[in-house]
Amino acid sequence: MKSINLEEKHGLFSKQWHPHQIATVDDMQVILAKIQGEFVWHAHEEEDELFQVLKGTLYMKFRDRTEVVNEGEIIVVPKGVEHCPSTKEGEEVYLLLFEKQNTAHTGDVAHEMTQTHYPKI
Amino acid sequence: MKSINLEEKHGLFSKQWHPHQIATVDDMQVILAKIQGEFVWHAHEEEDELFQVLKGTLYMKFRDRTEVVNEGEIIVVPKGVEHCPSTKEGEEVYLLLFEKQNTAHTGDVAHEMTQTHYPKI
Repeated sequence: MKSINLEEKHGLFSKQWHPHQIATVDDMQVILAKIQGEFVWHAHEEEDELFQVLKGTLYMKFRDRTEVVNEGEIIVVPKGVEHCPSTKEGEEVYLLLFEKQNTAHTGDVAHEMTQTHYPKI
Repeated sequence: MKSINLEEKHGLFSKQWHPHQIATVDDMQVILAKIQGEFVWHAHEEEDELFQVLKGTLYMKFRDRTEVVNEGEIIVVPKGVEHCPSTKEGEEVYLLLFEKQNTAHTGDVAHEMTQTHYPKI
């Protein structure tokens, strides 16, 4: 029951595309991530996923279009929808995500970017 | 699958202590609220509740102490813990909350401040 400072927590790690868990809410988790470039196309068949942009601009690619998500905005990717988070070239973007604790990083896709453990910070 | 701008959504209502729903994530909801003064002491027996401060300073009262939650910070109130959100006098605070869609506004407490319906915006 302590305040959690998002900027301070983001200062505790530097590796991109490596989510860190900062809190849980029932069976959900709050994770932070730093991203740059393009991730892996994937979907989560059973879970929605919320992204909040804390710094920079997220380009959320869907198969038919790209949604621009600016700082101070959120987007919810519904279960089953293929998506690929990306950024503009050379910009590091800070994210907060809210999702089930058992949500797989890249869904059913196995990739070298896939993380199976999110350190708690 | 559209971006949701938090500041823009906060501009759509003015009534304090009246949460508005802006999104759902599985069985959870994302709600916005404007608060000023002191709320009602209550607990949610079955649900955790996350508060994120978007503007101002939240003073989260617990029975034995008060936790200060500044802009850019979050706090999770675990299920069963009595709490009373409050602000300093004369300051309106903007909040984002993550909680189960069936979480009762003031838990088991019935009060004139209790809202049973959160409009979707």
